Amino acid sequence: MSYKLDYISRLLQRTSSKRIEHYVISRIWHLLDNYDLKMTPQQYVSRELSQYALTDVYFPQIGLHVEVNEPAHYESEDRINRDLKRQKQIEVNTGHQVFVIDCREDILGIHSQIDKLLSKINSEVKEQIENGIFKPWRPENEHNPNYWKNNGYINISDEVSFFTIEDICLLFDADYQKTKRGFLRKGAIANPKNINQLIWWPSEHPRSGWLNNFDEAVGTITETHSDEKRKSDHYYHHAQGTHIRICFFHYTDILGLTNYKYVGVFTNDKEKSNPEIGTVWKRIGDKLNLKTTEISEI
Amino acid sequence: MSYKLDYISRLLQRTSSKRIEHYVISRIWHLLDNYDLKMTPQQYVSRELSQYALTDVYFPQIGLHVEVNEPAHYESEDRINRDLKRQKQIEVNTGHQVFVIDCREDILGIHSQIDKLLSKINSEVKEQIENGIFKPWRPENEHNPNYWKNNGYINISDEVSFFTIEDICLLFDADYQKTKRGFLRKGAIANPKNINQLIWWPSEHPRSGWLNNFDEAVGTITETHSDEKRKSDHYYHHAQGTHIRICFFHYTDILGLTNYKYVGVFTNDKEKSNPEIGTVWKRIGDKLNLKTTEISEI
Repeated sequence: MSYKLDYISRLLQRTSSKRIEHYVISRIWHLLDNYDLKMTPQQYVSRELSQYALTDVYFPQIGLHVEVNEPAHYESEDRINRDLKRQKQIEVNTGHQVFVIDCREDILGIHSQIDKLLSKINSEVKEQIENGIFKPWRPENEHNPNYWKNNGYINISDEVSFFTIEDICLLFDADYQKTKRGFLRKGAIANPKNINQLIWWPSEHPRSGWLNNFDEAVGTITETHSDEKRKSDHYYHHAQGTHIRICFFHYTDILGLTNYKYVGVFTNDKEKSNPEIGTVWKRIGDKLNLKTTEISEI
Repeated sequence: MSYKLDYISRLLQRTSSKRIEHYVISRIWHLLDNYDLKMTPQQYVSRELSQYALTDVYFPQIGLHVEVNEPAHYESEDRINRDLKRQKQIEVNTGHQVFVIDCREDILGIHSQIDKLLSKINSEVKEQIENGIFKPWRPENEHNPNYWKNNGYINISDEVSFFTIEDICLLFDADYQKTKRGFLRKGAIANPKNINQLIWWPSEHPRSGWLNNFDEAVGTITETHSDEKRKSDHYYHHAQGTHIRICFFHYTDILGLTNYKYVGVFTNDKEKSNPEIGTVWKRIGDKLNLKTTEISEI
């Protein structure tokens, strides 16, 4: 079975508990009928930790989120306002668009909204192709460090994701052996091409007391520790100066595989960090030049 | 939410445990994109009781079954032969066609098979429309006894299905009050227009010891009783003469509603029945004229 069939059928299966959402998502996929377009759930953000729920589907190549709102979303003014606020926040913080499908309508109404979405997606893809900037979905490249090394830079929209820390090191010509220390593995290593940049692989799962909360809508990672003393020590250590981290967020993907996904370049947010919350890292760049180590700001 | 959206989204949800089958079925539905075509699981046959597993999807208007064979279906010669035998049996007994989708292929291969299926369905529908015999899917009519009364006849391919025994009686102008006897309800009533025909509503669920095994592929219903004496008494009672039963099979549909579905006209099969197995009823007609009580043979 091909990777794409495996991937997309698992993605559809994931949503099957929400009957109408599932119907809408499967319809979008089948009617788009474009093997070069990646459709992704925003799974590498932990729902439990994030202040905001995730969008239902995301098209990374065109920066478009789709929200499938089952009738329950419209049950109260409060819920409606929360949804709108969240949508606005995603758009402002990520520069992405959010397309909402209102499932209070009947089958014809829902199909008609999907048709509008498909037209939008298709015309944006067409425009990218005409401008020579469309990047077809190539799962075999996404996970290949040599491919990105040759490419010369990595960008959030490229969906760069590695299976191992060794592959991250390979991308930067960093010494993989130095990531090991006894039984524990270090959570980061300096970029050999720029010692002011730390290559970092935080996890959504707690590790030796460390906990990382990645809020993708806002573009922040909050680093805390279950031990108050260690949390505040860590905060004071990063309260001064400018720290830069190239971040590969660790999560388990839809196929059940461990992934370290490139989610951008971050710096310490001195305003938001404090000894109680911990150290807050805010995203300052989407794109990283692997040779010059230059960061392109959002 | 409209009935059709409710119906089809539940049908898709039902198959979601089998990932690839589910992918294929949702693709068929979305790419057909024809609200007038009913797609149905063969749910009113109990999987536990039937000797043969069911087809995955059935299109009653064109008499076409679709089998989605996940790779496991091809794991042994024995399994392959069983599948073929069963397919043949369905085709011979029902006069329907069976279209098999082989999921050992990759995503392009599976999509290409689905494309062939869609062409086939679309051309058969087009032909029916041109010949003026196409009957669009109208769930509101399926369940309405007055609609069928006006129609003058019922046919298996029409998907006639009632929510209550009262509605069955209404169709035949039978006296609903006579179906009651104390706390129990009778399982049948004579057709007022032809006392040689019994209107029968057997259930897939055991009732006071009675158990009915409906094998749709073969077109038989086996009537047994948990009590050996009652089973053999029942057999001897039907071993002589010709008994005719107009059958509405009782089951719970995809929306969780009780249904009595018209599954044809049956007669006692003297060869297959015996005191051990019980009374076997074989289908002898698909279509029943409600005024003349004439049965059209298969």
